[in-house]
Amino acid sequence: MFRKADILNFTAVYRIGNPFKTGATVLDDGGFDFKDQQSIRPFELIQEKDSTILKYKMKDDERVFGLGENLGGLNKRGKTYRLYANDDPNHTPDKESLYSSHPFAIIDGKDKSFGFFIDFPGEMLFDIGFSEYDTLEIRVSGRDLDLYIFDTSDKLDIIKQYLMLTGKPYIPPRWAFGFHQCRWSYPDSATVSSVADRFREEGIPCDAIYMDIDYMKDYKVFTVDEEKFPQFGSFVKEMKEKGFRLVPIVDPGVKMQKGYDKFEEGISNNYFCHGKDGNPFVGAVWPGLTCFPDFLRSDVRKWWGESYKTLTDHGIEGFWNDMNEPAIFYSQNSMKKILEDVKNFFSGQKIEDIGWASASLRERMNKMSNSRDDYKSFYQKTDDGKVVCHDDVHNLYGFNMCRAAADAFEDIMPNKRYFLLTRSSYSGAHRFTAIWMGDNMSWWEHMLVHIRMLQSLNMCGFFYTGADVGGFGCNSDSQLVIRWTQLGAFTPLFRNHSALGTRKQEPFSFDARSMEYMKDTIKLRYAFLSYAYSEFIESVENLRPFITSISMNFEGERVKDIEDQYMYGRSLMVAPVYMPNAAGRYVHLPQCRWLGWTAKKWDERNLQVYEPGDYYIDAPIDRIPLFIKENSMIVLNEPMDYTDQKDISTLYVVAFVSKEACFTYILDDGISKDYEDGVSSMLNINISRQDEKYEIAIDLDECDEVAIKVQRVFFEIYDEYNELYKEEIEIK
Amino acid sequence: MFRKADILNFTAVYRIGNPFKTGATVLDDGGFDFKDQQSIRPFELIQEKDSTILKYKMKDDERVFGLGENLGGLNKRGKTYRLYANDDPNHTPDKESLYSSHPFAIIDGKDKSFGFFIDFPGEMLFDIGFSEYDTLEIRVSGRDLDLYIFDTSDKLDIIKQYLMLTGKPYIPPRWAFGFHQCRWSYPDSATVSSVADRFREEGIPCDAIYMDIDYMKDYKVFTVDEEKFPQFGSFVKEMKEKGFRLVPIVDPGVKMQKGYDKFEEGISNNYFCHGKDGNPFVGAVWPGLTCFPDFLRSDVRKWWGESYKTLTDHGIEGFWNDMNEPAIFYSQNSMKKILEDVKNFFSGQKIEDIGWASASLRERMNKMSNSRDDYKSFYQKTDDGKVVCHDDVHNLYGFNMCRAAADAFEDIMPNKRYFLLTRSSYSGAHRFTAIWMGDNMSWWEHMLVHIRMLQSLNMCGFFYTGADVGGFGCNSDSQLVIRWTQLGAFTPLFRNHSALGTRKQEPFSFDARSMEYMKDTIKLRYAFLSYAYSEFIESVENLRPFITSISMNFEGERVKDIEDQYMYGRSLMVAPVYMPNAAGRYVHLPQCRWLGWTAKKWDERNLQVYEPGDYYIDAPIDRIPLFIKENSMIVLNEPMDYTDQKDISTLYVVAFVSKEACFTYILDDGISKDYEDGVSSMLNINISRQDEKYEIAIDLDECDEVAIKVQRVFFEIYDEYNELYKEEIEIK
Repeated sequence: MFRKADILNFTAVYRIGNPFKTGATVLDDGGFDFKDQQSIRPFELIQEKDSTILKYKMKDDERVFGLGENLGGLNKRGKTYRLYANDDPNHTPDKESLYSSHPFAIIDGKDKSFGFFIDFPGEMLFDIGFSEYDTLEIRVSGRDLDLYIFDTSDKLDIIKQYLMLTGKPYIPPRWAFGFHQCRWSYPDSATVSSVADRFREEGIPCDAIYMDIDYMKDYKVFTVDEEKFPQFGSFVKEMKEKGFRLVPIVDPGVKMQKGYDKFEEGISNNYFCHGKDGNPFVGAVWPGLTCFPDFLRSDVRKWWGESYKTLTDHGIEGFWNDMNEPAIFYSQNSMKKILEDVKNFFSGQKIEDIGWASASLRERMNKMSNSRDDYKSFYQKTDDGKVVCHDDVHNLYGFNMCRAAADAFEDIMPNKRYFLLTRSSYSGAHRFTAIWMGDNMSWWEHMLVHIRMLQSLNMCGFFYTGADVGGFGCNSDSQLVIRWTQLGAFTPLFRNHSALGTRKQEPFSFDARSMEYMKDTIKLRYAFLSYAYSEFIESVENLRPFITSISMNFEGERVKDIEDQYMYGRSLMVAPVYMPNAAGRYVHLPQCRWLGWTAKKWDERNLQVYEPGDYYIDAPIDRIPLFIKENSMIVLNEPMDYTDQKDISTLYVVAFVSKEACFTYILDDGISKDYEDGVSSMLNINISRQDEKYEIAIDLDECDEVAIKVQRVFFEIYDEYNELYKEEIEIK
Repeated sequence: MFRKADILNFTAVYRIGNPFKTGATVLDDGGFDFKDQQSIRPFELIQEKDSTILKYKMKDDERVFGLGENLGGLNKRGKTYRLYANDDPNHTPDKESLYSSHPFAIIDGKDKSFGFFIDFPGEMLFDIGFSEYDTLEIRVSGRDLDLYIFDTSDKLDIIKQYLMLTGKPYIPPRWAFGFHQCRWSYPDSATVSSVADRFREEGIPCDAIYMDIDYMKDYKVFTVDEEKFPQFGSFVKEMKEKGFRLVPIVDPGVKMQKGYDKFEEGISNNYFCHGKDGNPFVGAVWPGLTCFPDFLRSDVRKWWGESYKTLTDHGIEGFWNDMNEPAIFYSQNSMKKILEDVKNFFSGQKIEDIGWASASLRERMNKMSNSRDDYKSFYQKTDDGKVVCHDDVHNLYGFNMCRAAADAFEDIMPNKRYFLLTRSSYSGAHRFTAIWMGDNMSWWEHMLVHIRMLQSLNMCGFFYTGADVGGFGCNSDSQLVIRWTQLGAFTPLFRNHSALGTRKQEPFSFDARSMEYMKDTIKLRYAFLSYAYSEFIESVENLRPFITSISMNFEGERVKDIEDQYMYGRSLMVAPVYMPNAAGRYVHLPQCRWLGWTAKKWDERNLQVYEPGDYYIDAPIDRIPLFIKENSMIVLNEPMDYTDQKDISTLYVVAFVSKEACFTYILDDGISKDYEDGVSSMLNINISRQDEKYEIAIDLDECDEVAIKVQRVFFEIYDEYNELYKEEIEIK
């Protein structure tokens, strides 16, 4: 796909020892010129018995960006990060691990920048100026790794190099850019139906409804509970006719149950991860005791991938791979041990002596979930028969589960773009899956986490991503969900989700006023469909993140510290309000003029030109501050109930042009994989200004004239004096 | 102290039922004209079987301020708050309860404001626009309460009324305005000594070192472990000679141990809270099984209060009352029950079935601490012999423990201002104790919590307060502690504290550069001693909070949403940087000009005049943005190693005067209670400007000329054009 030479040009590749082939990169290593590991500039390399340490002295002006899915600031200095996939639902600021491992980072200095990627499947501890404020120390839990150093100061170029190495990001179908509704759980088809109908009744656009764990029979993967979801195929079809895709959850753990086909197949083919004794490793997850497929093996992946057919046969086109760190509530062994200890402990103790001891027992019980000891206690196999401890390749579990699905979809859904969302991932997984940010909370603080992680994940190739809008755990009030919906409307994945036992948070779950606000925002999202989809495709083609931090777009020290504004595509800056009871927020408008839009309804455009600088922007509860960059445009369309409802025949271009702006509008069928080869339509729009006059050119370059549906384009063009020029162009 | 008429003027008082006398108010109710409870405007009153509901429809423009120690924004809308003292060390944003109950709030509307105080000793649930965005619903868990409505639109007046009702705030001794160092724990006198010496060696000012639970013999209250702290009296004296006060912790739980005097006295006099059977209630805290003094009773308070003498006899002048919600790890009864259940549960269970059941058992074990069931299971007695369930008066436990101490100090330390810090409190406790904000975390997010709570607590009379600088739980990096030290330097209580097992965070625990930054900041704190102390005394005399939110000082809607800046005294606005890796922050400068000082060293004054407006202020890691209000001044003094080290003979006045500014400098001996009657010195400084000329007047009004130590005042006066005028005045 990419020429190695393009990467090798300014990428130094160091192979240290004999690394495990993770699958993160798409280039085989034939052509790499491995450098001498004694001189890994600018790192100092220290190898210890079982680990490798990379050290780097940070200058005061150096920011550290990257690490994909992680807490902390966008600038990662001052904290430690443990890259070891972990199902911890309590994302407090001190936590070191989330669900994924993305060991790619950029050191952004005043005079010089560079990036690096450590390809290693086990635990890595990044101490980024925590122990010593000026020292980056990475402790890799092994002696074998590949290290890539991207030696260029252009941050977008560093990312491009990283993506050449690890592959082109995944493009979901167009319906993925609609609004998605989720809940743990809509337990049966009647509930799903009523939720869907409510969206249509209220006129709130929606494209997808998720099915959480309760749709399965006894939580058995690849089953559908026929009592709760009778005639599942017809139901899927019926829903699709209303414009809703159903997205079922898929967990890796296979319930230990005699007669259950997946379990029997796994056992008879030895497909499961196994303990030291060779027997399958047994841990408890939702279904109770389960076995875990060994996704390292291609035969297991093939078997697993084919299983998705049981759902695609019913018309399902999207999947949600969850619990694939893998999450383990407890292992059979750890439970046995604790049972023994509990019995011994409580026999004959005096109440006076029991306090501290019971606290330590409680502590142990609390630590049974996702325990490192369990991960160290089971084994996987490579295709060439080598046995590896799971702990050493832990971060590849979710990666390979998704790879199994993605590979299978090539056959199951040929030439069709699938929707795949995963919780756990490793670098490179962006080639075939989207991720969401896991089990966040209904905390205002998690909106800022969302905003930062959007940018960090995009740096690492996960262009299509988002967090649970409104927050997953804890209860939300309407204000939080309204504000979060505004943010979510400008994130690729726009999914409202909440946990069992928490307050309902669908857009219609609060009062009428709140619903109106959210409806307006979701319609705004749909009005941006053409813009977002076109820019997304472009971003993938150019290996340039769809969402970029401000410092990727503008020069200077000041912009490097902006973490709470971001570019959504190349024309639009988003500055969500993320503080409770705030009626506005501060915004920095860097280096050029901006056309501000404090947006409520998509067709009420209160636009205003701003000079570069710092502003406090008023944004009452029903409005989100948006800014169109000078010499660029956004393209809007009339909102629909769902993305496929009708062809888009009219475009509304809103442009801010002092010299020239262009935009490529892409319309394909939204679902075929080979859109590049004919079914896509590209409309190049160019607006130039000379002598106070605008010239508008619409070019149907590379465009299949049959496919182009646009018949009319309305132009609203602002100049730097806030003067509005309007024009309407018919397309023949 | 105050004339009832002053309050009754615009305060409506409603007595509903036959309320419990909490002790919150200082006015007896003889003179109150109790209003008809059927017309509690603007509240709707609903009485149910065991509870009372107060409802109020909030207008969109109404902010709700108050509730003292609580999470959430400064504006409390959008969340629920459970006023029920709770020892929960994990202050995540969803938590409803902290350690205290302060049921005083202000509804701040565009056209009209009012305040209210509900005097009730049990649980209250405030739903402030959570369930319905426009509804305030207060559920009081009883049918008997006093409700005070302060019907005036001036917020400072509302607070003044509340403080006339509940009493004048406590004034700590002047050394309380120094820097305090704490750690759980400095386990012995050698460690305390070495910490103290390190401060002096490094030239970092410090006035107090705390002694956490390990100084006691087996955690027995009012004992000192003679092995760890031999010759305690001499040690206290030695430390004091070096300028350090020792502040020991005091917990209410009395260890059940035969022969231990406090326990034996409590038992033989029936001083402890008791179960239904009349036997003492037994719960576990640090010492193991303990009994809890019944502080509702004046005889118990007297007994308890006198016990402080065991420590004051050694020269101790300050105390730290902790765990007085009261925190209970588990009760003897609940442990017995769970032991029984565990035995039954684990006998003969199959591993397959055990998963969910063990999870629920674990859940139960996790909920054993501070359990409502325990609080409901024991009883207290009033002075007139009435037995009340602890749960019904739960919020008074810490209040009365502190009252016991404060009352005793009148005798033990006559005419001496004591230092008393408590974790749990109820409204009115501000008369005799300071509080800190409990067990926060080393999270950046908790700096903002600190900033907000400073303002909320000051509204409720707790003028002297602060949070653990650097964060108590979790590990800090140097940057967080540096920034938090900057914030702490401008909070009345300035205490660095951290928990067992966390990274050390004394100012000298990081690198040399970080220590220099913190040293500069702590010296800055000491340079502000004269200003802070004078303004604090003034604030108490005038019943006007020492720390005020911006909206208490300026008009308009915009300032009502400013939560992250505050006034420290009347002249200085503080805008701490509280985001990681930020090199500055936004600041709103309301309605007048401001003299900005991005401060690092106290004697490096890079001052600059700002017009009102919004600014992004550069503030590198070693600087904190401060702003002196137009027509006001600050007074600085040379920093010292500790507050009592020497007399302040030179003052440095920094003023920003376009018309006139005045300041009252107060110097008393810092420790005597009767400073009002002669030993205090007041220096009135007035700077006026006419025809481009300044006139400076220093007036020794009401001043004991013997006590006045100031000999020289240097003036730096800025005008609105940033022009500096200097003058030096000798005081004869």
